[in-house]
Amino acid sequence: MFPKYDVIVVGAGHAGCEAASAAATMGSKVLLATMNMQTIAQMSCNPAMGGVAKGQIVREIDALGGQSGIISDRSMIQFRMLNRSKGPAMWSPRCQSDRMLFAQLWRQTLEDNPNVDFWQETITGLKIEGGTVTGVVTSLGITIEAKTVVLTNGTFLNGIIHIGEKNFGGGRAGERAAKGITEQLVKLGFEAGRMKTGTPPRLDGRSLNYALMEEQLGDEHPAKFSYTNTPHLTKQRSCWITYTNESVHEILRAGFEKSPMFTGRIQGIGPRYCPSVEDKINRFADKDRHQIFVEPEGWDTVEVYVNGFSTSLPEDVQYQALRKIPGFENAKMFRPGYAIEYDYFPPTQLTSTLETSLVKNLFFAGQINGTTGYEEAAGQGLIAGINAHQNAHEKSPFTLQRSEAYIGVLIDDLINKGTEEPYRMFTSRAEYRTLLRQDNADIRLTPKGLELGLASEERRKNLEEKTAATTKIVTMLQKEKVAPEQVNSRLEQFGLSQIREKTSLEQLLKRPQLGIEELAKLDENFASFISGFSDESREHAEIEVKYASYIEKEKLMVGKMKRMEDHAIPEAFNYHQIPALSIEAKQKLSKLKPSTIGQASRISGVSPADISVLIIHLGR
Amino acid sequence: MFPKYDVIVVGAGHAGCEAASAAATMGSKVLLATMNMQTIAQMSCNPAMGGVAKGQIVREIDALGGQSGIISDRSMIQFRMLNRSKGPAMWSPRCQSDRMLFAQLWRQTLEDNPNVDFWQETITGLKIEGGTVTGVVTSLGITIEAKTVVLTNGTFLNGIIHIGEKNFGGGRAGERAAKGITEQLVKLGFEAGRMKTGTPPRLDGRSLNYALMEEQLGDEHPAKFSYTNTPHLTKQRSCWITYTNESVHEILRAGFEKSPMFTGRIQGIGPRYCPSVEDKINRFADKDRHQIFVEPEGWDTVEVYVNGFSTSLPEDVQYQALRKIPGFENAKMFRPGYAIEYDYFPPTQLTSTLETSLVKNLFFAGQINGTTGYEEAAGQGLIAGINAHQNAHEKSPFTLQRSEAYIGVLIDDLINKGTEEPYRMFTSRAEYRTLLRQDNADIRLTPKGLELGLASEERRKNLEEKTAATTKIVTMLQKEKVAPEQVNSRLEQFGLSQIREKTSLEQLLKRPQLGIEELAKLDENFASFISGFSDESREHAEIEVKYASYIEKEKLMVGKMKRMEDHAIPEAFNYHQIPALSIEAKQKLSKLKPSTIGQASRISGVSPADISVLIIHLGR
Repeated sequence: MFPKYDVIVVGAGHAGCEAASAAATMGSKVLLATMNMQTIAQMSCNPAMGGVAKGQIVREIDALGGQSGIISDRSMIQFRMLNRSKGPAMWSPRCQSDRMLFAQLWRQTLEDNPNVDFWQETITGLKIEGGTVTGVVTSLGITIEAKTVVLTNGTFLNGIIHIGEKNFGGGRAGERAAKGITEQLVKLGFEAGRMKTGTPPRLDGRSLNYALMEEQLGDEHPAKFSYTNTPHLTKQRSCWITYTNESVHEILRAGFEKSPMFTGRIQGIGPRYCPSVEDKINRFADKDRHQIFVEPEGWDTVEVYVNGFSTSLPEDVQYQALRKIPGFENAKMFRPGYAIEYDYFPPTQLTSTLETSLVKNLFFAGQINGTTGYEEAAGQGLIAGINAHQNAHEKSPFTLQRSEAYIGVLIDDLINKGTEEPYRMFTSRAEYRTLLRQDNADIRLTPKGLELGLASEERRKNLEEKTAATTKIVTMLQKEKVAPEQVNSRLEQFGLSQIREKTSLEQLLKRPQLGIEELAKLDENFASFISGFSDESREHAEIEVKYASYIEKEKLMVGKMKRMEDHAIPEAFNYHQIPALSIEAKQKLSKLKPSTIGQASRISGVSPADISVLIIHLGR
Repeated sequence: MFPKYDVIVVGAGHAGCEAASAAATMGSKVLLATMNMQTIAQMSCNPAMGGVAKGQIVREIDALGGQSGIISDRSMIQFRMLNRSKGPAMWSPRCQSDRMLFAQLWRQTLEDNPNVDFWQETITGLKIEGGTVTGVVTSLGITIEAKTVVLTNGTFLNGIIHIGEKNFGGGRAGERAAKGITEQLVKLGFEAGRMKTGTPPRLDGRSLNYALMEEQLGDEHPAKFSYTNTPHLTKQRSCWITYTNESVHEILRAGFEKSPMFTGRIQGIGPRYCPSVEDKINRFADKDRHQIFVEPEGWDTVEVYVNGFSTSLPEDVQYQALRKIPGFENAKMFRPGYAIEYDYFPPTQLTSTLETSLVKNLFFAGQINGTTGYEEAAGQGLIAGINAHQNAHEKSPFTLQRSEAYIGVLIDDLINKGTEEPYRMFTSRAEYRTLLRQDNADIRLTPKGLELGLASEERRKNLEEKTAATTKIVTMLQKEKVAPEQVNSRLEQFGLSQIREKTSLEQLLKRPQLGIEELAKLDENFASFISGFSDESREHAEIEVKYASYIEKEKLMVGKMKRMEDHAIPEAFNYHQIPALSIEAKQKLSKLKPSTIGQASRISGVSPADISVLIIHLGR
């Protein structure tokens, strides 16, 4: 009934969609199996893509030839570049999405790919022969054969939904759980665990009083995620900000005795950095308010998402507490928030291609690996999809280094350190974050995407244009010099110190207060030159020049780290003598006694910063 | 947590959406409870609205102020007026729909109604006090109070899905069943039964060879459903026709031993007039082929619906058989067809407002009443919604007579005759079908919709304009006379007999071969007059004039029937002496011995035609 596929992807969330799309684009015959074709690419939680470190991942996915960036651009209703006031390593694109449009575009994208077949049914088992996966088994008992299988089951494996003292099986509100796969894998020797995540109630936007909230507009000149020629937003929808208060907290606290979290009914560990509101008022008892973002769910719907109010307290407690929030006095709920517990497999059981160590040609991506977040899932899906294709065609594995991409950091962390709580990306997890910027993901990764046969010709063209443009701009900045009499009065206007001799624009650009825009005001010749270049190229050139020394330093560090990988650590080394090491690192290192820097760096709780300190110390 | 609602509607399919929309538009505070807000107004089966007798129902819903017509117009991808070659009583509008767009527009329509609240959760019980419903109980145990409740549970009550020898609980592929309500109602004394329906496999349109099928285009000048100013289609998508053959039948027959229908695993009775393909080849063993309509599921999707191939045979049998159909040689399935069994409540337990006799203020609409079809469901939903509003506000019940609307026929049949198999509307069920045309639903029903406060001012205006225009056209047709020398040569060209004296256009229009278009060619004066009128008005005036005698005859019949309602039938009356009575009618009437014509007409199996025969006989 089915041909033998190169790749079967189980689950059609962010991870599954990217995996299927990538493998199919590279030429694999792919089957995407989902419980319900109507819910492909549902955003289960907030209607948004990107954010700090996460936006960088979307840019990386895009640069390699994935689809999340393009679809985000086409379905977004608001765009903001977060952290603009900080250094460019921190700049992070984020958008609000139209939930339905996002799903619709993913489905169309997959349908437009001639190598993607679809099957709507629950997958309940795997066909495994001699330690190699060779297919999947469906709830109807059909066996579908494939060279490789990618599991992206999200929160569906033995999912249990909790609201107050009640709980019931389900993979998402209104959807069934999936059974069978965990049990089979555990029998084969896999270790499985339970994790927990949560989602806030959804409200009826018509019942809210926005006059009592702060409006949060999108950027005046919205950028976007994709390096391809997706359109820029021309209109945007606002979000709104409000706050909890003591009355809210009091009501929530009174519900704690019925909380599945605090009464021990939930065994799984939740995401520390995306805590429930009850968790926040419990852990930060001194804070008298917490921020709530009110996010519209799309262009045309009245449904709103209450970011910051994830909860699994009883629905009436949720309701009473919500109504004490300014602007929510008459709030109506569409559905309560809930917590969901689900099976995951500690990701230390994976290799760097996201293939399992125990079963050949079996890949895991997304929440099944203990991560949280759409972007983290999509990034893993892309890598699993690429490598499933590579395996199916006996090609070399594809991996990314920590110095090449946040996706590299993510997977390296997962497979080496594992995770005991839902893993979320942060810029602090990356030791080379000045290299891993949102503006250069194409330069870092598109050549790799092209080599894989994943990135399109459009991307090659755009990259070549951008690279050429950047070179031209940088050359011009080095060549073009301005004289004191030409610029000093203007510099004074800017409140900056004057120059004493002819100075290159490159030199001036290194001043923190001056950007390319200001240089154009100082020098007419440069102004007319620069006017022909795109925002992307200008931004990239400016960052490359302005932060050249930081970038150079990190590049040196990458080289040093590579050389240090095998650098021995004396067995009797006394970590406690180094004050700059974190307490956790001192304890772990003293206990585990790694024999090389490489080993030390892969210990959970030992941060990249600790390793840097160690290298400096050992280097002496 | 919830206010007390005027109306709670359980279920958001065709029936539930119309019920919620109608009651809310009339001013009731409505809560629409659905298991999943992402699946509001899902077309569970074919992506189409209307059809023979069903299209008339959509026009009637629209004329009263319902939304199905407007949403169908806005989401359609093809329109055809069926039976154009027959009399106007048979003309039936039908469209192919974009499945996702249809659902999206319904959700938006409901969200745009300020009186509709939403709650996403399964309803598992009713709150009933002293024989009156006063609310619903959710799966979380929340009680939500209301003055009236409308149940539109579709196929979800204890739904079981069958595919070959396998079966599992579910309300629709990929969705859960609903439990609790049947059990509660049965305890209260309700009679419940099981019905069955089925749906065909969904195919990947990219895998089909359309060159081997016949193309079915939409109408050249597509009409539409709504009497409001919805836009006309400017582009359309084609359907395709192909056929089963002996090889297909052979494969299917070989699977009969695993058929849940033929092996007795399915207890519920299926829709006789929408049979599964296995049923067709079993019942019509002499037919060597059956027609298959290949219907696209939307503007932008490759998914296609295989109309005519509903089946619950094992998925591999479905697959093998499909591949023997011309054009399907390489067909890929997205999901198999399946049968679904579900609870219904014999509708003889309802009054003519669709309120239950046993529990006050409790209404049933749609498949829960044993009907099949989106249009039948929507029509019932509208009536239930209207009457729930009327009850909640202590206003008079609203009902439609058999002579006023197909919806009247539908409900009259259901509550008086009940149904032992999924009830589907046919023109033959209506004794006054020349009165119940698709072109005059507004004239029949919009005044009632306006009186109820359901139909909009736009409808009043359009109706007034159409009525005025029709009067003008009819007056002109009566007044304008043509002379033999003016028209005879043209009549000869048309191949028609000549006239001998001055003749009114009205007279000429009664000739079957002449329409308003031809009259305009005969008479320049009329041509310039008629050019200012809309297609709707022309069509309506033409039908009113051309079929005046038939219409008059039926109107007389309506009066006669009203008078005959109480006409006594002698107890010893010998039905077998009337050859024109159907065999079934003779048997039923002889057995049940009704004492009046009214009683006789409400016996299941006694058709309107039988009653006409009886009246004529008794009238002698």
